[in-house]
Amino acid sequence: MFQILDIIGTMAFAMSGALTAMNKKMDPFGVFIIAFVTAVGGGTLRDVLIGRTPVGWMLDLKYVYVIGISFVLAVIFRKKFDKLRTSLFLFDTIGLGVFTLIGLEKGINTGLHPVICIALGTMTACFGGVIRDILCTEIPVIFRREIYATICILGGTVFFLLRKLNLDNDILYLTTSLVIISVRLMAVKFRWYLPTLENK
Amino acid sequence: MFQILDIIGTMAFAMSGALTAMNKKMDPFGVFIIAFVTAVGGGTLRDVLIGRTPVGWMLDLKYVYVIGISFVLAVIFRKKFDKLRTSLFLFDTIGLGVFTLIGLEKGINTGLHPVICIALGTMTACFGGVIRDILCTEIPVIFRREIYATICILGGTVFFLLRKLNLDNDILYLTTSLVIISVRLMAVKFRWYLPTLENK
Amino acid sequence: MFQILDIIGTMAFAMSGALTAMNKKMDPFGVFIIAFVTAVGGGTLRDVLIGRTPVGWMLDLKYVYVIGISFVLAVIFRKKFDKLRTSLFLFDTIGLGVFTLIGLEKGINTGLHPVICIALGTMTACFGGVIRDILCTEIPVIFRREIYATICILGGTVFFLLRKLNLDNDILYLTTSLVIISVRLMAVKFRWYLPTLENK
Repeated sequence: MFQILDIIGTMAFAMSGALTAMNKKMDPFGVFIIAFVTAVGGGTLRDVLIGRTPVGWMLDLKYVYVIGISFVLAVIFRKKFDKLRTSLFLFDTIGLGVFTLIGLEKGINTGLHPVICIALGTMTACFGGVIRDILCTEIPVIFRREIYATICILGGTVFFLLRKLNLDNDILYLTTSLVIISVRLMAVKFRWYLPTLENK
Repeated sequence: MFQILDIIGTMAFAMSGALTAMNKKMDPFGVFIIAFVTAVGGGTLRDVLIGRTPVGWMLDLKYVYVIGISFVLAVIFRKKFDKLRTSLFLFDTIGLGVFTLIGLEKGINTGLHPVICIALGTMTACFGGVIRDILCTEIPVIFRREIYATICILGGTVFFLLRKLNLDNDILYLTTSLVIISVRLMAVKFRWYLPTLENK
Repeated sequence: MFQILDIIGTMAFAMSGALTAMNKKMDPFGVFIIAFVTAVGGGTLRDVLIGRTPVGWMLDLKYVYVIGISFVLAVIFRKKFDKLRTSLFLFDTIGLGVFTLIGLEKGINTGLHPVICIALGTMTACFGGVIRDILCTEIPVIFRREIYATICILGGTVFFLLRKLNLDNDILYLTTSLVIISVRLMAVKFRWYLPTLENK
């Protein structure tokens, strides 16, 4: 089950990357690389910072294949993305939940403090998008207005609070991802934005 | 003493990051992340390149807290930064000296050649600002005109020259940081700039 | 022989970096750093991702010296680059071949799957230029139109196909680099470009 959600999230992230790259009129190599880093960039940064090398996608080819398929689908259906927007948004939200959990888990396995684990969860879920935006020379969208990373931090906090109750691991994971997914859906539905901070 | 200077430098770097991010009208998450990478980005890059993982700030929560406090202060006083400019500049200069020394020391502990240690010192002191500028899609300011990195290279060279004299470690550290701090103050006072290189 | 080609490639990459930085009117420190990351950035990223740290250039000062000399030459002859364009292009193409081979070899030595080795070869040869472009706030040129990375992927594929024939290592290396170099020359001669993908 978790495996399938991981794949769904990877596909959604890869497609969002491919879409951004095509908006920038890149060539197929550029589109593939942007799709790739959007999908695995956050986890790669996490692995490098905690010293788990070779990084994840080098040891499990599943990610390369899933991203390759997503890339091909994104190119074929590139003019029909508007119709798929709702599905893509749902998949992306699943990715947000699953990737945060994976990051939290790797942090715990490395023996790091909960605060750092939450940072790693957020990084896993959000920094692929940051690298995507930087490679497209845009200021990362999650730094500007979208409530996105904040939801991962909230999810991570809920995770560690619940963990103190000695819940079963399955329930712990399920609750955390449901919190992340439902807050994300509400944030978009009710147009919750973070205010921008200005100093002028 | 060294500990306190390290904290002062971290605060100054975090505030300079927060300030840049607010100039770009980022949201609170963006401002915090830019403050964070400006403060620890150079040291993180250094740790990753020499293989000291998990990287420093993951093992010592002090940095997370210091940056968190700096972030809150920067947001509260964001309209009064002009009055604090001189203090911030002094703190930033202390950071330049301290961070260069930390980088030099990690290089020596890893058994690397002096030339590489000087590169690591410069990286520790200057590359947080480079990552900050890239995340704000600006060409890094230290590549364009400011004599900043050059002072770290000078400081590192002085460090290794003095080291041959078998000075006491405390004196070695003090002299190096005083060289960096005083050259930086003079560079700003007397408006020393590097020329730009043009090929047209 | 291989050593000499490695140095020629490093020089060509460093000069291409210096040239881009001077087009952006950077100061000498900026020009040196851009020259440096263009030359060693791809290999550094590869080493970090597979966990070979301290990264290559920290353990073999040859690269620092070669890049330093290239930097000085690039600054001195900066107004005469137009006349050197053909030589530089040839050197750059040699770099493309040699760096791809080095990346392939490190991947094999780390025990990674051929698909990942090809990715590492391409990364070694092409991602210095990606980092150069990002530090200059340009969308990386290899994502936009140039057939460049694609040739490395082709070269890597040829390498693994030939490897199944149990050829002598020297012949294997020579053939692969000749494939990369000659396809690159033809791509430029006959103006082969990848199409851009647009979704509008």
